[in-house]
Amino acid sequence: MAAPSQLNPVEFLRHKRDGGEHRPSDISAFIDAFVAGNVADYQASAWLMAAFLKGLSRQETLALTQAMLHSGSVLTLPSVKRARVDKHSTGGVGDKISLCLAPLVAACGVAVPMISGRGLGHTGGTLDKLEAIPGFRVDLDAKRFERFVRDVGTCLIGQTEKLAPADRRLYALRDVTATVECIPLIVASILSKKLAEGIDGLVLDVKCGGGAFMKDLKSARALAQALVSVGKGAGKRVTALITDMSAPIGRTIGNALETREAIEILQNAGPADTRALTLELGAEMLVVGKRCKNRKEGLPLLERALADGSALAVFRRLVKAQGGDARVVDDPSRLPQSKTKLVVTAPKSGFVTGIDALALGLLAIELGAGRTRADQKIDPAAGFELHATLGERVQRGTPLITIHAASPTLARSVEARVARTYSLGTRVVRKKPLILARLD
Amino acid sequence: MAAPSQLNPVEFLRHKRDGGEHRPSDISAFIDAFVAGNVADYQASAWLMAAFLKGLSRQETLALTQAMLHSGSVLTLPSVKRARVDKHSTGGVGDKISLCLAPLVAACGVAVPMISGRGLGHTGGTLDKLEAIPGFRVDLDAKRFERFVRDVGTCLIGQTEKLAPADRRLYALRDVTATVECIPLIVASILSKKLAEGIDGLVLDVKCGGGAFMKDLKSARALAQALVSVGKGAGKRVTALITDMSAPIGRTIGNALETREAIEILQNAGPADTRALTLELGAEMLVVGKRCKNRKEGLPLLERALADGSALAVFRRLVKAQGGDARVVDDPSRLPQSKTKLVVTAPKSGFVTGIDALALGLLAIELGAGRTRADQKIDPAAGFELHATLGERVQRGTPLITIHAASPTLARSVEARVARTYSLGTRVVRKKPLILARLD
Repeated sequence: MAAPSQLNPVEFLRHKRDGGEHRPSDISAFIDAFVAGNVADYQASAWLMAAFLKGLSRQETLALTQAMLHSGSVLTLPSVKRARVDKHSTGGVGDKISLCLAPLVAACGVAVPMISGRGLGHTGGTLDKLEAIPGFRVDLDAKRFERFVRDVGTCLIGQTEKLAPADRRLYALRDVTATVECIPLIVASILSKKLAEGIDGLVLDVKCGGGAFMKDLKSARALAQALVSVGKGAGKRVTALITDMSAPIGRTIGNALETREAIEILQNAGPADTRALTLELGAEMLVVGKRCKNRKEGLPLLERALADGSALAVFRRLVKAQGGDARVVDDPSRLPQSKTKLVVTAPKSGFVTGIDALALGLLAIELGAGRTRADQKIDPAAGFELHATLGERVQRGTPLITIHAASPTLARSVEARVARTYSLGTRVVRKKPLILARLD
Repeated sequence: MAAPSQLNPVEFLRHKRDGGEHRPSDISAFIDAFVAGNVADYQASAWLMAAFLKGLSRQETLALTQAMLHSGSVLTLPSVKRARVDKHSTGGVGDKISLCLAPLVAACGVAVPMISGRGLGHTGGTLDKLEAIPGFRVDLDAKRFERFVRDVGTCLIGQTEKLAPADRRLYALRDVTATVECIPLIVASILSKKLAEGIDGLVLDVKCGGGAFMKDLKSARALAQALVSVGKGAGKRVTALITDMSAPIGRTIGNALETREAIEILQNAGPADTRALTLELGAEMLVVGKRCKNRKEGLPLLERALADGSALAVFRRLVKAQGGDARVVDDPSRLPQSKTKLVVTAPKSGFVTGIDALALGLLAIELGAGRTRADQKIDPAAGFELHATLGERVQRGTPLITIHAASPTLARSVEARVARTYSLGTRVVRKKPLILARLD
């Protein structure tokens, strides 16, 4: 590695402020100095604002990704001989796909090393869902992570202090300086963490719609393109699906409820949209992992692994390996259950023309299923079970949704607002396709 | 005062980031929270960068000025019955005008409460020049400041911890986050400090040219206009002169040397350009202080005060009041003298077509006459004495400049570069007018 260039942080800031493009070596020196404490938080945040307003080129984003990646340890998983492919979702409501997707793809012969996050704001987090399984540990060290990826085919853990520390510190600053919603910074943040997992390839699920970070197809496409381009620049095989996030995914929101739904998928059952999304992302992962040539070849492999129980078997081994109670795999009633179940019914007859995913995500926080600050505790049992889905015809009094809450008071405090998340109309609305676009 | 609005710092940053205009109450709440420690430095610096790139309107700049002003104590000088007018220069090379101007204007019946700064970078500072006078104290408290303004007619001190603390903290951040060169932020910084002095009016000397912060007339005019407009918005009488800073002012650069030149002006002697600038700024101050109707009425008053010794008498009282050795007023040889005096001569015959003020300012730092960091000590005797000025015809071997340094080694280390600050040509170059523009 070349010696870091002599960096003057103020000149570096001035260069971006004036719309200049940084040299990769300067970006690397800036991040190194930031991690070493030689660039202050107030300098980093001023640079983040300048980068937000003046943009970062693909080359700059790639350099930032690499610098953040190499700010910590990078796993190589030398003992894992199979192709290693991960999936990353930009975050949705009811998005439990990772839980069923990882064992399913592993069952088809592609290793899935997955480092996930916790829920923050209206979107859930894979770690919280897994921890709804009694005993499940997500704080495994790198050695065990590698062993389980090798022996089980997949392992799902949380980010450690050692992986991409620059990202963790920069993200904390972005969160409090209004510099989150910036594609190059998002791309570098996502990819620096994912590249640290020791993967060969990555499939991105870029969510688009009211319940997602990217509200419209144009911005979702811009993010997807940047992710694919920079990911490839880092030498990985990367594809992206842009998927609809206008309504919640599947029929559950909330940690234990979503884990149950993921198990149903692995049992070759579950909601059609959750299954379809799992299969589509799985097929992409198999292609990226060179297990098959194209999506068409991949889908039957995946369907077979669901039908013959091999995907469920991987999940069972995964739960066991990570210390969880594997009995939940066959008996999901062992997952935490809420004390109160309050059914919200349709106030009139009509077609379900919309379900406000964002509003439900925010209401789930109020129930304790999510958090607004990283240090908040969550209630694994809390959440929503959707009975009526988009396009369905309901009668007045038909159950729309069940609120799972720790107390009747809590359930009632959100009841009216939960009811308003359903739009009922006189005419059926054509559903958006699940996959809005594919990029590679 | 109205209760501060409930402020979410992240929303405040987002608003400016997205090009919005802040409400005055939000700016006030942000600055209050910053001073109270409820807005972090990294948030303030991100806002400074957003403000730099998205701009601040006149209303926002005024609100920022007022918020910074009221972050500390504001002097009112109730016992001073005369009009109170100050002058502020944006910083030049060889700019010793304040030292002769303050006593001169005071001698004409307008009080001059002046809170000044120290030299930083290539521009000098009034406090350093005054401190070249043995015993002179610039750290007087508000009580004595008021007493001397009342009894002597003027007093020149340094900024205290109590005056505009928000400006001091914000400026420190701007300095290390590449957000210095921003007109609204400059305006708020200058005016918040000046308005804290208890003045009725202010005359601004906006320097323009190679040795100044503003290199061209367009940017100098923009700064002057903003200063006048916001100053008036704050209820003060304000005028601005834009003055030429392409060559050093007068014949000296360096603290004791400049103090000597200022005394010469008060003795009704000294270089023509230093005298002219003093008179022009003085006339503006007399008009702003309502001592006379216009510049034409003011100039004879000032000339008389120089001729009859009354201005010099005020300076003598000022030096005495502030603890200095008043004998320097009649015997400037009592000012610190450098050990080494090295004369640089013309390498060829010709007309002086340029003197690089910026370069001389930077070389003066090397001699110890200035500083690059606020905590550096200075050598009061060090500096330059200019013998040949712009437009003069010199022969090969004619002295151009004398280097005053602590040692021959130090003097020689800059000799060649000092020589290069003079441009010699075959044809005389027309001098720029001293006053480039006037704004009110």
